[in-house]
Amino acid sequence: MASVDVGVGLLGYGTVGSAVSRMLTESADEIERATGHRLTVVRALVRDTAKERGFVPGEGVLTNEFVALRDDTRIDVVAELMGGIDPAGGYVRELLRAGKPVVSANKQLVAREGADLFAIASEAGVQLRFEASVCAAVPVVKVLRESLVAENVHRILGIVNGTTNFVLSRMERGGTYAEALAEAQSLGFAEADPTDDVSGADAAAKMAILATVAFGSRVALDDVACSGIEAIEPAHVAAAAAFGMAVKLIGIATLADDAVDVRVQPALVERAHPLAGVEGSSNAVVLQGDAIREVTLGGPGAGGVETASAVVADLVSVVGTSGTGFLQNDACWRELPRLDPAGWRAPFYAHLEVADQPGVLGHAATTFARHEVSIAQLVQHLEPGRAALDLVLHDARIGSVEAALDELAASPEVLGRPFIAPVIAA
Amino acid sequence: MASVDVGVGLLGYGTVGSAVSRMLTESADEIERATGHRLTVVRALVRDTAKERGFVPGEGVLTNEFVALRDDTRIDVVAELMGGIDPAGGYVRELLRAGKPVVSANKQLVAREGADLFAIASEAGVQLRFEASVCAAVPVVKVLRESLVAENVHRILGIVNGTTNFVLSRMERGGTYAEALAEAQSLGFAEADPTDDVSGADAAAKMAILATVAFGSRVALDDVACSGIEAIEPAHVAAAAAFGMAVKLIGIATLADDAVDVRVQPALVERAHPLAGVEGSSNAVVLQGDAIREVTLGGPGAGGVETASAVVADLVSVVGTSGTGFLQNDACWRELPRLDPAGWRAPFYAHLEVADQPGVLGHAATTFARHEVSIAQLVQHLEPGRAALDLVLHDARIGSVEAALDELAASPEVLGRPFIAPVIAA
Repeated sequence: MASVDVGVGLLGYGTVGSAVSRMLTESADEIERATGHRLTVVRALVRDTAKERGFVPGEGVLTNEFVALRDDTRIDVVAELMGGIDPAGGYVRELLRAGKPVVSANKQLVAREGADLFAIASEAGVQLRFEASVCAAVPVVKVLRESLVAENVHRILGIVNGTTNFVLSRMERGGTYAEALAEAQSLGFAEADPTDDVSGADAAAKMAILATVAFGSRVALDDVACSGIEAIEPAHVAAAAAFGMAVKLIGIATLADDAVDVRVQPALVERAHPLAGVEGSSNAVVLQGDAIREVTLGGPGAGGVETASAVVADLVSVVGTSGTGFLQNDACWRELPRLDPAGWRAPFYAHLEVADQPGVLGHAATTFARHEVSIAQLVQHLEPGRAALDLVLHDARIGSVEAALDELAASPEVLGRPFIAPVIAA
Repeated sequence: MASVDVGVGLLGYGTVGSAVSRMLTESADEIERATGHRLTVVRALVRDTAKERGFVPGEGVLTNEFVALRDDTRIDVVAELMGGIDPAGGYVRELLRAGKPVVSANKQLVAREGADLFAIASEAGVQLRFEASVCAAVPVVKVLRESLVAENVHRILGIVNGTTNFVLSRMERGGTYAEALAEAQSLGFAEADPTDDVSGADAAAKMAILATVAFGSRVALDDVACSGIEAIEPAHVAAAAAFGMAVKLIGIATLADDAVDVRVQPALVERAHPLAGVEGSSNAVVLQGDAIREVTLGGPGAGGVETASAVVADLVSVVGTSGTGFLQNDACWRELPRLDPAGWRAPFYAHLEVADQPGVLGHAATTFARHEVSIAQLVQHLEPGRAALDLVLHDARIGSVEAALDELAASPEVLGRPFIAPVIAA
């Protein structure tokens, strides 16, 4: 190749970096047809330049010196594929300040330090794009920012973590959480230390990013109420099935009365809802707005090539819109308060283990009623000396439901901590 | 308002036009944040300027003279919302030649005259966008052209007609085609003359557009093999349910061995497939490619506001990318041959009505075998003097399956014309 048209720098050249490099090479013609430009990887920052790579970069591309990349005048745009906060965050800041647009696949960085990074990008007048940071190849950021630009998206429901969805799908076919997790690990769908996934932390970062884009107000990671799937028991999965529902780890972002609520937790999803059918490690996001009612996007939410596909799309968008003022700025333009966490409303599922004594059922029912929570469905399973109660509660404030359950948990006839999860109606 | 920043012209100011006008007004701030520009409707061509409108346009906006719109120097971009070929096609040509970018919601125009229109747009160096022409608010064109720009999308499966999906969803709950259609009509999901929908013609136009964009080769409307839902009987729907499948009108575009096949026909979709759960008048499209495996997009495929949402997104994209060379040109860059229609392969469902005579089943089985079609599942329903055979056939050339059925149909023990439909496996 003679002269470089559009030079691309990569921070990181592992699985995703190799896939980006391969895709830019193999799809160079498609990209040129779309943008009028040829994109070439001219520098990639790695720790070890001698290591074997999935797609061999050109001569002299690999470097272990950040300055060699930062000061390379051939570079027009950089993709950050390192992950982690440090040193990735510092590198991205330096590049933005140097006037280089950046495309990032790093959800932790965007979720935790987005405010600062976007401020730097705006000041420098360059783009910072981040499609690959959420749901890999599922183009939810582009759809939110461009296709639904005039749409008041007020609710996002998402299955945005493939590991937990795999584990829960597996539990539907029988077995405990521990067994399902072990299978996910043996098949490569869960890490040896799965904490970040099963705790909901990974999903929380993605939901914080999506809520920020959709609502135009910064949602920090700490603003996301988060509970994971570790406490899911076969009894919950069986009860869900009996009610015609599936247990899923769901991210829910709500804009109501000019306040924002973002949460990640197990939920019971009615079978006819689009998210109920999302199986295995797939991701899916439902965007609800005024005009569109509901748009659903689904696909692979992880994987090297899948993530690379989103990175390349962002690189192409940067090249295709540079200099137009289009979407270069932060999605945030207002500061919305957080909804009182206790004020969030939904129908709920509750599971209680109780002593098999006369009057327990009545006690539970009157306790809920006193907190203005009414019962839609109740199933009792008797075991020797004890019983399990599975309840579906009508739409109520979560604060009221929790207060009722706290009160019940304190009574001697309720054994252990009750379990609750919102119900997502079809 | 003082001076016009970006002036918008509308061809047509009915349901969609009113909704576009309202959305541009009510979302002016969002659009300015995204693009740096304020879009204002300055002219709208209508037949009757005195008619009452869903959203009242500004003073002097309505005109019944095309030249008044064409020659209005304040207009930077035009949305064509008239529908039909004539006079819409002529107007769009004149506008493109005059250097005005056009956004069209007109699937018939894009599917039938796309080749000519895109050539004119390219020559004039202006954009012609058409997101709203396919599946209204579901952003499938943008995702194909931008998010999946480096992706070799080789298969598209779509439920792209809401009327037929409503009718088939209704038939799953019992009743005949005529009853389901009457209900769709009474609820406003089907027109008084439903021919264009139930024949598959509407879906064929959308699939022609999607295949053209995805494969980069022009697919004319006449290239789409098309059969509708008029021949669907309760027996087919019941047999599908017994096999764990649902009958859907499916558009299938395939790129294989550098040849293209596009077809619209009833298909049996396995329950676990994302398209099986698409209920009522919704649309959904599955895009299969090398890196992404499968991305699914779903949502409302029709409606005034939903279509307007896509038109506004296109207007914003035009404003946001003008002058960059990004996606201004025709998606077509090659001429791929059409796959031999008989060579298209799939597993199939077949329904035969036969005389209840000894040997009929054996005759059917040996006939299929002679054509190298093997039977995966067979269910026989006996009625007095006759029997119905429901078969699922293993993957085979459609030409072979049709030849076997032709031969069977010619035998006196087979009553009437057998019915076949491809099976979409999960």
